[in-house]
Amino acid sequence: MKSTMMAVPLSTNTMFARMDKLFGQSEVISRLPDKRLVRHSFTEIAARTRALAHALKELGIKKGDCVATLCWNHNVHLECYFGIPLAGAVMHTLNLRLSGEEIAWIAGHAKDRVLIVDDILLSLYRQVAERYRFEKVIVFPFGGEPIPDDCANYETLIAPHLGKPFTPAPHDENDPIALCYTSGTTGRPKGVAYSHRSTVLHSLNGCLPDYWGLKGSDVVLAVTPMFHANCWGMPYGAVMTGADLVMPGPHLHAEDLLDLIAQTQPTLSLGVPTIWLSLIQAIEQNPCRWSLPKGMRSIVGGSAAPESLIRAFARHGVDLVQGWGMTETSPLCTISYLKPELENASEGEIFRLRATAGVPVAMVDMRIMGEEGEQPWDGKSVGEVQVRGPYITGSYHDAPPDPDKHTSDGWLRTGDVATIDPHGYMRITDRTKDLIKSGGEWISSVDMENALMSHPAIAEAAVIAIPHEKWNERPLACIVFKPGQKATPADLNEHLAGAFAKWQLPDRYEILDSIPRTSTGKFWKLKLREQFPA
Amino acid sequence: MKSTMMAVPLSTNTMFARMDKLFGQSEVISRLPDKRLVRHSFTEIAARTRALAHALKELGIKKGDCVATLCWNHNVHLECYFGIPLAGAVMHTLNLRLSGEEIAWIAGHAKDRVLIVDDILLSLYRQVAERYRFEKVIVFPFGGEPIPDDCANYETLIAPHLGKPFTPAPHDENDPIALCYTSGTTGRPKGVAYSHRSTVLHSLNGCLPDYWGLKGSDVVLAVTPMFHANCWGMPYGAVMTGADLVMPGPHLHAEDLLDLIAQTQPTLSLGVPTIWLSLIQAIEQNPCRWSLPKGMRSIVGGSAAPESLIRAFARHGVDLVQGWGMTETSPLCTISYLKPELENASEGEIFRLRATAGVPVAMVDMRIMGEEGEQPWDGKSVGEVQVRGPYITGSYHDAPPDPDKHTSDGWLRTGDVATIDPHGYMRITDRTKDLIKSGGEWISSVDMENALMSHPAIAEAAVIAIPHEKWNERPLACIVFKPGQKATPADLNEHLAGAFAKWQLPDRYEILDSIPRTSTGKFWKLKLREQFPA
Repeated sequence: MKSTMMAVPLSTNTMFARMDKLFGQSEVISRLPDKRLVRHSFTEIAARTRALAHALKELGIKKGDCVATLCWNHNVHLECYFGIPLAGAVMHTLNLRLSGEEIAWIAGHAKDRVLIVDDILLSLYRQVAERYRFEKVIVFPFGGEPIPDDCANYETLIAPHLGKPFTPAPHDENDPIALCYTSGTTGRPKGVAYSHRSTVLHSLNGCLPDYWGLKGSDVVLAVTPMFHANCWGMPYGAVMTGADLVMPGPHLHAEDLLDLIAQTQPTLSLGVPTIWLSLIQAIEQNPCRWSLPKGMRSIVGGSAAPESLIRAFARHGVDLVQGWGMTETSPLCTISYLKPELENASEGEIFRLRATAGVPVAMVDMRIMGEEGEQPWDGKSVGEVQVRGPYITGSYHDAPPDPDKHTSDGWLRTGDVATIDPHGYMRITDRTKDLIKSGGEWISSVDMENALMSHPAIAEAAVIAIPHEKWNERPLACIVFKPGQKATPADLNEHLAGAFAKWQLPDRYEILDSIPRTSTGKFWKLKLREQFPA
Repeated sequence: MKSTMMAVPLSTNTMFARMDKLFGQSEVISRLPDKRLVRHSFTEIAARTRALAHALKELGIKKGDCVATLCWNHNVHLECYFGIPLAGAVMHTLNLRLSGEEIAWIAGHAKDRVLIVDDILLSLYRQVAERYRFEKVIVFPFGGEPIPDDCANYETLIAPHLGKPFTPAPHDENDPIALCYTSGTTGRPKGVAYSHRSTVLHSLNGCLPDYWGLKGSDVVLAVTPMFHANCWGMPYGAVMTGADLVMPGPHLHAEDLLDLIAQTQPTLSLGVPTIWLSLIQAIEQNPCRWSLPKGMRSIVGGSAAPESLIRAFARHGVDLVQGWGMTETSPLCTISYLKPELENASEGEIFRLRATAGVPVAMVDMRIMGEEGEQPWDGKSVGEVQVRGPYITGSYHDAPPDPDKHTSDGWLRTGDVATIDPHGYMRITDRTKDLIKSGGEWISSVDMENALMSHPAIAEAAVIAIPHEKWNERPLACIVFKPGQKATPADLNEHLAGAFAKWQLPDRYEILDSIPRTSTGKFWKLKLREQFPA
């Protein structure tokens, strides 16, 4: 027998159609380069989005063509999220933290036809343009900068189409809608192409009460860049549920974000741990100036948040909720919500769990693979994390299959090394390439970093392996002190002694002004290894 | 270009795989016929479910075969929800409120091969068996009744397979997993076949925070029968999130349910309004004996809950949340959560909104069609509700296309008549076949019933049309008084006068002991029309 269900495709166009039909009064609040706030209702955004789709069609954009964005987080970037797919095209979010040369390589690999770029990013665009020619460049007058003659003005382009209905391009649910390149620290970036289907499924999953818990009444502060795994998919979730979105534009310094939080009172925020670390430092230096909205949930990901940071936010009434994923995984794979069987655990145990990467979410299959095959979920056995599911990439755009990236039985090799405990909480112990092997035994650089960052004098710590004649590799700890604070290597080793065996302790500490970071805010250990070759 | 996402099918087997891997400590609490409670952990249920799949395979059940259930709500019925599809078969939930003859017709239409039946329902089974022969009958020893020699014992059948792993039958996401017949008050019942895909999508959608808001920490009291649109899909949601399930077995009287609520303290419950009406009456008659768990959310659907009932529960700290849907729609189509733009509305306005059918949920397209085509969402224009989406039926099992059921452009005609206001709240005014047309003008029977049920003396009211020489049709109100209460037709017409024009008021009231109901608890107006032909 057969199912009698309708063959209706999953589609972000359907999600978009609800934007003004049901949620016309919801808002996008964008911060301009001059720090003023501008508000657009979902009704306005929806009309502008349809106008963008018309304009792209007029420019000759065809189904499957790539339209790139080089933009901060603001309402126009959201219009691109829905308007480019409405026209049948693929939105390619370019990473504005990369160099012009890198961006040009990526745009060339993706064969981007059109670029939508913020006026305040035109100097970066010019570096790109030296190496890659877009057919058409559309400039969003975000900061009121002059628009070059050979570029179109976004507002002028969409104006004639405002108020017109738009019939979405015919499509299949597996058609691509967005392209994102990984910010791989080694090798050339690789493109991940999300589909209507994967995006709808990821949005439904992410919004579930135990995960993001996104409601129509939420006000979401999206600090995560819209080019960073598409802001972790949150803009789609906000449009699906009718939640308000707060877009910080180019101002991501702690003081700017704290002012924005005070002005908009978000109930949910998202960003990398570095951002939250800078916020807590600013608040603690200026305890009278700012406060955080009580009960705000803050999703952190991109790299691991140390337990000390989670505790610091808890003292301010904010729930830091840790998630884990990658550009390749849409990204949500795990999230550290508290399972009901652990509700009566001790406070210490609960913070320990909240500092893990969390539990696999619905629709994501997860396993840890060691040298002897799949490892048990006993909280001790270590293996590479591998994932599988309908919103996880099975290949890379225009690239041959790569056994380093996918297993022969169809799982994504994440490159992260972890344990999973019997409750399902995953604890990342390392990247496969960051593991330290000393005298035949493994040392977890991540555990050591977290332990160091719980020392009162330390702001940041990154641990790398340096070659050693006798032990093969030994740990080197690179540390950044908090302003006005100091500690000796002996102090720090004493601090670590509880959690680490004597042979695991670093032989050497290097004091830095800051840890070098990748374009998405992760510790860039490759740079540290270059700086400290031995 | 192409999406790079994995081609992983949506599958309830994947949902099931998480049941013991992640939520082994969650529980199903079932109430036995002798009213004792029995608890099964998800670990136990998962093992029993795999054993059932093995047993079905041993019985020769093949992919696509129908395995029927004739069961109350309990752990074994949940095992059927997952075990039958694991084996590749289709679970057909038979409605135990129908006559043996009706059940036999339905089982014959579905070509059910195997039946799983509660021992306490064997007398009903014997009536079925006179007209339809299942190849194999498996009896669940729920109440300790003797098991006939020609039937298998469920426990004996699964025992040899406990502890064995089971490899799910290969399947596509569009393969059927469950079959449910509509309880149509006219004509023969029609079968709706849900797929893996529709079930996963419905579960994700239903669990969203603004809708059911289902969390792992919830304790769900499932009063809605598991054969009534599959308990509105809630058992799948509970397994997906790891929420506990409380299954009331055969005891659905108000006192039994209130005792069960006291014993298990649910945080979420679901059932038809009649059930909640009986609970509130029992509590109000015995205010010292029972109380309701503060903060419990209670999803009501199947027919409209009057505002007075929602207000009564609010006084006891319980949120009655109204949903609307049909067997054909999986069922969730609308739910009456409070949209953020209405948070500051008056209390009266908020209760008025909560008494509507609510707002269309994600992935469900909705329109109201009048004689002149699609009607605006102005809260006044009336039309037939039509829906479209990936978990809505596009046809009926083994039945020819029917233009009364589906439009030529692929929408389901629900037979409900409604207005939708500018915020998206749908108010059902009637069934197309229950509309009253008097002197060329429409009278809403549903509005009049709700108004009558807000009178302090009235427990229930159903309004039907009776033929009239001059006016074509006139309303007749059938009413049931609360114990010890009375009111005259003049009193009642005075009560209605604020909301209805004089010509709309009933000419006639009939006082009944109870309103006849369909097998799923809806007012059975066909019976009333037979009883009062003129």
